[in-house]
Amino acid sequence: MPRPRSPLLSVEAIVSTALDLIDESGNFSFPRIAKRLEVSQSSLYNHIQNREHIIELIRAQVFAEQLQVPVEDLPWDEALRAVIRAYRDCIAAHPRLVPLILTQTVEDPGALSAYDTMAAALEQAGLPPERIMAALSLIDNLVLGSAMELTAPAVVWAPPAGSFPALHRALDIPYTVEGRSEAAFELGLEVFISGLRALEFT
Amino acid sequence: MPRPRSPLLSVEAIVSTALDLIDESGNFSFPRIAKRLEVSQSSLYNHIQNREHIIELIRAQVFAEQLQVPVEDLPWDEALRAVIRAYRDCIAAHPRLVPLILTQTVEDPGALSAYDTMAAALEQAGLPPERIMAALSLIDNLVLGSAMELTAPAVVWAPPAGSFPALHRALDIPYTVEGRSEAAFELGLEVFISGLRALEFT
Repeated sequence: MPRPRSPLLSVEAIVSTALDLIDESGNFSFPRIAKRLEVSQSSLYNHIQNREHIIELIRAQVFAEQLQVPVEDLPWDEALRAVIRAYRDCIAAHPRLVPLILTQTVEDPGALSAYDTMAAALEQAGLPPERIMAALSLIDNLVLGSAMELTAPAVVWAPPAGSFPALHRALDIPYTVEGRSEAAFELGLEVFISGLRALEFT
Repeated sequence: MPRPRSPLLSVEAIVSTALDLIDESGNFSFPRIAKRLEVSQSSLYNHIQNREHIIELIRAQVFAEQLQVPVEDLPWDEALRAVIRAYRDCIAAHPRLVPLILTQTVEDPGALSAYDTMAAALEQAGLPPERIMAALSLIDNLVLGSAMELTAPAVVWAPPAGSFPALHRALDIPYTVEGRSEAAFELGLEVFISGLRALEFT
């Protein structure tokens, strides 16, 4: 009996290889996973159903470590801040994952639990039921948008000298890609909480 | 002398073909543009410098029609609303363009002019100079995030029955992909303006 080509092939190995490929290039494919693991492409299907299955397992892995935040007994604004920050920390480590997870239904229980916690906090904030979904999507936009910004160039705007004075004034203050993404996220979180309070849905 | 293979090859034809490919598949390439226009790949370089050049020309085309909004004499909040809505209308027509334009420095004068108008409105709102850049990035996150959401599946969250009650309540209210994206954008804009006012930077 021939020795198995790769005795270590496992769901974990496939998922972490796919995530490495996404971090490096923004995408993954079965041929590239197989090549990197030095196995046949068909052997991957002994462990994984399809592309969607891999993406959902990546979502679970990325969110598993940090997304479970104890927020019982916290007021709604502190609960929201804690979960949204944890969500952002998870995804900021893998910004190129954003376009892939965006196009796929969330089935991972860890991620669903975070959304459930945020929905409950938004109810406590007095947001009317018909606006909870919009608020969850808005949180996604804030978090996923600021994470995607980590893939933006250092210089986002290059106005020619002598025009666009307000934009030039904003650009005069030094910043880094990470600093800009972080500052946009923090301002977004602050504005979101203050805005919810100011709109007085209750 | 042989008749030229494609007498109609032009910058405009290349740019609109690239945009069609992006709308269809999320990306473009020189070979695919050449194939669709039935020209040789090398002939494209008589009109276009490189991939980045095409993306910047697409940005110019997408933003050209609608982004010039007259906002002089408007109070800062109405000016912001008008420009941000126009920006969103432009990009919502081409949501798959978002990952491509995000990774490239903005050089198109039309787009730069819109950012300059928003920066001036944010100054009028009393936002401190060191936060203007963060606010512009936050606006990008709101607009580009809600546009990207148009590429999301109809069912974003699929919680199993009997768990995650707050998320189930939010999902009980019917919505469409477009409706969710629109509602998230409108809530984001409302929260952004109210939040800026409530934070009392002045």
